[in-house]
Amino acid sequence: MAVPFTASDAARLDELDPLRPFRDRFVLPEAVTYLDGNSLGALPKRVADAVGEAVTRQWGEGLVGSWNTADWIGLPQRIGVLLAPLIGATAAEVVACDSTTINIHKLVTAARKLQPTRDIIVCERTNFPSDAYAVQAIARATGASVIEADAHDISEAIASAGSRLAVVELTHVHYKTGYMYDMAAVTEATHRQGGLIVWDLAHSAGAFPVDLSGCQADFAVGCGYKYLNGGPGAPAFVYVARRHLGLVDNPLQNPGQNPVQNPVQNPLPGWMGHAQPFDFAHEYQPAAGVDRMLTGTPSVLSMVALEAALLDWADVDLAQVRKKSVALTELFIRLVDEQLEGYGFDLASPRVAAQRGSQVSLTHPEGYAMVQALIDRNVIGDFRAPDILRFGVTPLYTRYVDIWNAVDALRAIMHDETWKQPRFRTPKHVT
Amino acid sequence: MAVPFTASDAARLDELDPLRPFRDRFVLPEAVTYLDGNSLGALPKRVADAVGEAVTRQWGEGLVGSWNTADWIGLPQRIGVLLAPLIGATAAEVVACDSTTINIHKLVTAARKLQPTRDIIVCERTNFPSDAYAVQAIARATGASVIEADAHDISEAIASAGSRLAVVELTHVHYKTGYMYDMAAVTEATHRQGGLIVWDLAHSAGAFPVDLSGCQADFAVGCGYKYLNGGPGAPAFVYVARRHLGLVDNPLQNPGQNPVQNPVQNPLPGWMGHAQPFDFAHEYQPAAGVDRMLTGTPSVLSMVALEAALLDWADVDLAQVRKKSVALTELFIRLVDEQLEGYGFDLASPRVAAQRGSQVSLTHPEGYAMVQALIDRNVIGDFRAPDILRFGVTPLYTRYVDIWNAVDALRAIMHDETWKQPRFRTPKHVT
Repeated sequence: MAVPFTASDAARLDELDPLRPFRDRFVLPEAVTYLDGNSLGALPKRVADAVGEAVTRQWGEGLVGSWNTADWIGLPQRIGVLLAPLIGATAAEVVACDSTTINIHKLVTAARKLQPTRDIIVCERTNFPSDAYAVQAIARATGASVIEADAHDISEAIASAGSRLAVVELTHVHYKTGYMYDMAAVTEATHRQGGLIVWDLAHSAGAFPVDLSGCQADFAVGCGYKYLNGGPGAPAFVYVARRHLGLVDNPLQNPGQNPVQNPVQNPLPGWMGHAQPFDFAHEYQPAAGVDRMLTGTPSVLSMVALEAALLDWADVDLAQVRKKSVALTELFIRLVDEQLEGYGFDLASPRVAAQRGSQVSLTHPEGYAMVQALIDRNVIGDFRAPDILRFGVTPLYTRYVDIWNAVDALRAIMHDETWKQPRFRTPKHVT
Repeated sequence: MAVPFTASDAARLDELDPLRPFRDRFVLPEAVTYLDGNSLGALPKRVADAVGEAVTRQWGEGLVGSWNTADWIGLPQRIGVLLAPLIGATAAEVVACDSTTINIHKLVTAARKLQPTRDIIVCERTNFPSDAYAVQAIARATGASVIEADAHDISEAIASAGSRLAVVELTHVHYKTGYMYDMAAVTEATHRQGGLIVWDLAHSAGAFPVDLSGCQADFAVGCGYKYLNGGPGAPAFVYVARRHLGLVDNPLQNPGQNPVQNPVQNPLPGWMGHAQPFDFAHEYQPAAGVDRMLTGTPSVLSMVALEAALLDWADVDLAQVRKKSVALTELFIRLVDEQLEGYGFDLASPRVAAQRGSQVSLTHPEGYAMVQALIDRNVIGDFRAPDILRFGVTPLYTRYVDIWNAVDALRAIMHDETWKQPRFRTPKHVT
């Protein structure tokens, strides 16, 4: 075995970290080791000012006129412009709206309707509950069957559906284990059967570069409040590939490329997705592009926070984010191996970096109490039933010393058995 | 004709107004006559502090722990508690979530599924677009027919549907004209045919007392950002009568009252509507009460603003609100009669107070330019295509002098023909 890694090794890696300056853009309490940015991203400093301005000046003084003068009405699209480069999309393919769950309902239903004679939806057996509930409800409502597979059997399940395959719905990175699908391969397997895929990017967007266009993905949803740091319950987003919007890239350069005859329709139509919302027309006429996926009035204050948070990404090199994310999670795993042997932990996340998102999960039957004991020591990870200790790394602000601190604290509570104290064993909400 | 009403009459009415002190709770620019609280309510002073606290302390310092320590997770229900007395509901029947449009989709679909053999949905021909689009989409998706009637023919349309009547969906107060349905009578007419009713309270909640329970209403949705002052794009709310939730009022006092066998189901299920969200169960098990209508993660910052705004309603006498609202709209109509004769305006709102919500609408073919010319004089109403000038009165902060100022300004721009200036005729968004 190599020489054990030490706290000063961690400090040295932080000194050499090219992303180090980004941490200064966030509010992070000095004493806290925060490894829960995959549940709620930290507060970007510019957000407090932006929200204050939106409340006091735009709403308070500008009143209803701010829909125009502060361009509140353009928030869903402006956020789309900022999001697009993070997920390998063009600005015309992304808008912010509603919650992730509502958007899963929209896109899976919409995809299901594009090829109505196909009647199988494939998803993952341990997908996030909202994904599972949406797929189950849509299958019931539209007379489809659901094939639920384990992650390593997904390609087989997709192949088995054959010409009946309508839609595949998957969370790209698993919320509990951090297992990451090969987006290109699974998308290709889906298309080979003539199906359409909806990717849930909840644990991907902002965690590493995503290439929806390069993977030929059809649809995606994502979450604003995790790695994107948009604030608690931030608006989610919707991605629809241009080819499903009836958009032609450039009619002059692409004379043979016709818009598809069957562009996607929003199954939850509302006034904001109308071609001319302010005509207040009685008949629904969908907007030309991805705007058709909008439904109701945008949640302005939450969108202002998300927009401000996304401005911080303009000068971020996503390749560096991924590189540091891998280094941080590898260090975490190494330290678990070195320091926690014999305490009964298992690694729930893949050891192969290419299969791992930006988190490390451990299993332990007493995980709940351990997470509480860590929180008591200002190390914030989270617990996921029944037995998962989950630690997210968010390279814009997570330091190597945070990884060191977390595993060191875990070692200490195991060594001293502090996690056995009754106060750590009373269930509370964990989000 | 009586002696004409004057500006000093208006000032005297304000002095005598028992609701006068409430205006101090709002941020309102000195120079502005604001008659657009039916589009965006003014900023309650306490909201800026509440949002600042939520961003800086709860999110910034408390981080993910604030889901528990600041009880973010309880926001949808806490808002329900505050809303219930404003709409004649019990706290167990109301939660805040999503947008009004999304909630219309939820409730009309849910109501449609309760009696699947009935296949007619009745709505109003000039309903707000989102209401119309939702009803049209749900009818297509579920194989129902839509009967669209004019407001005065609604009871006839309901009767004509007979035993095929599934759902009636109506906006209680019309967004353009301010026409108000008799909620008790229309609900009774619906029930007489065995149908269920969904009321859209966008222009009712906070405008006057609403009595959903007393009217035996089945379902309702409402908007947080108009008369409730919850902020731009504030979360909406959902009301479901207890009898559709399978709740028994008091089993000891009501031994014969059994929960209905067929409680309402959320057609857009998500993790927040699960009986035990933090079990992350794969099978959906709806929460016991109205919480089942929740879908995704609550939009915390927007909900914090709405909650703070609703705290201002705790000591408001809604009967006084209605009384003043009627007095203000009657004054508006009187002044239009006295001062705008011959300029080509028609009154679009009912003259009978009992049929009028808290707004006055005029029609004029050049209404768009006139509203722009009024805004230029700091009188804020809004325009609704094709020809409606709309003025909302919000008794907590609208003064009698505001009504005077508005009609006086309208008289001035007509007399001087300033509305004819080209700068007022370029279309912009009007929300």
